[in-house]
Parts: sequence; structure tokens; C-alpha cells
Amino acid sequence: MSRLPDDLLVLVPGNSLLTATPEEGRALALTLARHTVHNIQPELDILQGGRPNYSTDPQALMHAVHVIAIEFATIAAANNYWRS
Amino acid sequence: MSRLPDDLLVLVPGNSLLTATPEEGRALALTLARHTVHNIQPELDILQGGRPNYSTDPQALMHAVHVIAIEFATIAAANNYWRS
Amino acid sequence: MSRLPDDLLVLVPGNSLLTATPEEGRALALTLARHTVHNIQPELDILQGGRPNYSTDPQALMHAVHVIAIEFATIAAANNYWRS
Amino acid sequence: MSRLPDDLLVLVPGNSLLTATPEEGRALALTLARHTVHNIQPELDILQGGRPNYSTDPQALMHAVHVIAIEFATIAAANNYWRS
Amino acid sequence: MSRLPDDLLVLVPGNSLLTATPEEGRALALTLARHTVHNIQPELDILQGGRPNYSTDPQALMHAVHVIAIEFATIAAANNYWRS
Amino acid sequence: MSRLPDDLLVLVPGNSLLTATPEEGRALALTLARHTVHNIQPELDILQGGRPNYSTDPQALMHAVHVIAIEFATIAAANNYWRS
Repeated sequence: MSRLPDDLLVLVPGNSLLTATPEEGRALALTLARHTVHNIQPELDILQGGRPNYSTDPQALMHAVHVIAIEFATIAAANNYWRS
Repeated sequence: MSRLPDDLLVLVPGNSLLTATPEEGRALALTLARHTVHNIQPELDILQGGRPNYSTDPQALMHAVHVIAIEFATIAAANNYWRS
Repeated sequence: MSRLPDDLLVLVPGNSLLTATPEEGRALALTLARHTVHNIQPELDILQGGRPNYSTDPQALMHAVHVIAIEFATIAAANNYWRS
Repeated sequence: MSRLPDDLLVLVPGNSLLTATPEEGRALALTLARHTVHNIQPELDILQGGRPNYSTDPQALMHAVHVIAIEFATIAAANNYWRS
Repeated sequence: MSRLPDDLLVLVPGNSLLTATPEEGRALALTLARHTVHNIQPELDILQGGRPNYSTDPQALMHAVHVIAIEFATIAAANNYWRS
Repeated sequence: MSRLPDDLLVLVPGNSLLTATPEEGRALALTLARHTVHNIQPELDILQGGRPNYSTDPQALMHAVHVIAIEFATIAAANNYWRS
């Protein structure tokens, strides 16, 4: 089986929660969730086998959106909500 | 397949969590959740195929409401709860 | 199909998270959750078709209670927990 | 059908989140969750019909415990965690 | 049926959220979750009947871990994250 | 049956939530979740039997990612989001 490359296994790419904008903060939320997936399941073949379920099954899709909302809450707090 | 237009793929439309009123903040919570859905599944046909499940299946509907409650918590904190 | 009246589609009735008492804050939490449901599914017939599931199926009922706990956390923070 | 008595339909009995001790705060968390259940389903017969599921089905039981953890988080914050 | 002894029905053993260390705080999180289970289902026979499901079914096990993460968040905040 | 070694049963390895970097904080979030699993189910054979489900079933995998997001929120707050 082919293992994911090392850069996809880094847990916090850039090693910071600080971003310039909310848009970048939201993108980081997606990245954090995906890289955690990679760490629990680093085998590319299994990941790609499960991918259709996440993106096409409404229940799985909503669970992914749920997790990203939680990650974003942390990132938004870290950035003082980009208030100033 | 037809892909969603770019403006529906922006993660944080307006690139800010700040809104004038709670009503607008709540609307932003719905938008954030929907645009995250769009990013995970940008194919319009698959999205429209799943849509009936979200809006008609009580369990899926409640999960969507759940996610929006989490997004709103973040937006409300960002706006100091529109206290003043 | 009959669509819900406009006042049930307002996301934050009163457009404020501030309430005089915890009891009113809790009632607002229920209202926020219900109005989000209305916005995702504004067709009265479909809503009434699903209603028996929410109130009679223990799993669906507990999910509704779960969502209200999250909404209340936001409202309680907005009101500084009605401490003074 | 017999409807629950009014005192079980109050959303926040005592109309306060403040308690003298963590033990009382935890008891309030259970009460808040139960009274929300009562408000969504005020018919005693249906509630008692569902009760065995909550207390005997491990999945339903854990969901109830989950909700109480969320309610307690709010109550603990309201009481400054009973630190002093 | 045999009922759980009273000390297992106390909701917050020690009646405090303050602990000397993160390790003790985490242990308290497990205790809070378990004692809430006890309060909802105080019959020992039913609890022991359900126990195998929690510890052997991956989905139930992950839900228990989920609840403990929420309880720990509250306890960690109460202790100012044991920073000093 | 073989029981997990004691070091895998420690709830908070290092007995601190403070880490030098976000990357280490995220790794701690994974560790906290795993060690809680170990405490609820310390039998190695049962754990290894369930492991394939977590890493290959998309729903179980997403629940694990969900829990880690919650643990990370606590750790990030403890570290003031590694802002300075």
C-alpha cells in the first residue's frame, strides 16, 4: 500500500493558528481536519476508498462540516476573531 | 458534471465575522455551513441529489441545525454578542 | 404546498440575544433552533410530517435537546449568565 | 392523554444558573435537560413510553450524558467554577 | 434488582472541580461522566448488562471518549489549565 | 488477555497541557483521546480487534477526528493559542 507523503501528515501545517484573514482561517480549519484524518489513516488506498462516502453521503458530509465548525471556533478565538 | 460557481466556494463571504445585528450573524452562520458543504462537494448534481435528504429527513435536518448552532456561537462571540 | 408565514422565518426574533431572565433565555434557545429548522425546511406540510418523529422518537428528541443546550450556552454567555 | 404538570414545564426552575456548590450545579444540569425534554414532548404517556430506551439503551444513555456535560459547562462558567 | 450504593450516585465526588494536576483533572472528567450514567440508570444489573457494549463496540467507545473530552474542557477551564 | 502497559494508561502523559508549539499541542490532543480509549478498554486484544473499524470506516474515522478537535480546543486555550 502507498503511504501518504510526509507533508500531508504534519498535524498543523505552518505550525501556527494565526492567519491574516477569516477566509484563511477557515481554510486552515479544513486543513486541520484533513490532516488529522491522514494521521489516523495514512494509507492512501483506504483513504481514497472512503472519500466517495464523505462527499456523496449527506450524513457523512454533514459530520465533516460539523468538525470544521469546531476547528474554526478554535482558530477564530486564536485570532481574536480578526476584529481589528 | 457542472461545478458550483466560484462565489459559492468562498469559505467566508465578505471575509469577516462581524455583522451589524444578530439576525445578520445568524444568516452568516447558515452561509458558513453551506459554503463548507460546497467546498467538500463542489459538484452541483451530487449536492442537489442530497438536498432532499437534508430538508426532509428529520435526523439530517437536526444535524444541520446543530452545526449552525456551533457556527453561530463563534460569530456571536466575535461580535461581543451585539451587546452595545 | 403551504409555506410558513414570514414571522416564523425570522432567524433571531427580536434581533437580540439579551433577555431579562434565564427562563426567557432558555425560551429564546428553543426559538432559535426552531426558526433555523423553518429556514432549512419552510414547507409546512413536510415540517408537520416530520414533527411526530422529533417528539416521539427518543433519539430525535435527545438530539433536539442537545442543540438547545448549545444555543443556550451562547445566550447565557451573551447575558453574562444573568449574574447581577 | 395526560399532560405534564406546569412545574415540570418551567425551563429553568428557580430562574437562575447560580448554585451554591458543584453538586447542585450538576443537579441543575440534569434538570435543565429534563425540562427541555418536557417542553418538546409534554405528553406523559409518550414520555414514559420512551423512558426505558433512555435508561437501558447504551447509545441513548450516552447521548443523555453528553447533553448533560454541555449544560454543566454553561452552569460551571456561570458560577465561575465555584473557585472561591 | 440491586441499586448502586449512594456514593456512586453523588454527581460531583469531592464537590469541587479543582484538582492539583491535569492527570487528576482528567480522572475527574471520567468520574463525572460515570456518575451521571449512574444517576440516569442506577440499577446495577442493567448497567452491567450494557457495559460490554461501551467497552467493546467502537462506536459506543468513541462516544464515551467524546463526552469525557467535553467534561475535561470544563474542568481544565476551572483550573486555569494548571498553568502556574 | 493481555492488558495494556501502564504507560499507555496514564491519562495525561507529561501531566501538563502546555506545549511549545501548535504541532505538539495537536499531537497531545491525539494522545489524550487515545489514552482515554485505553482507560475505558485496557484489553489489548479487544482494542486491536476494534482498530480496523476506526481507521477504515469513514463514520468512525470522522468521529475520532471530531473528538480530537474538541481536545485540541482545550489545549489551544491552555496555551493561549501560542500567540506570542
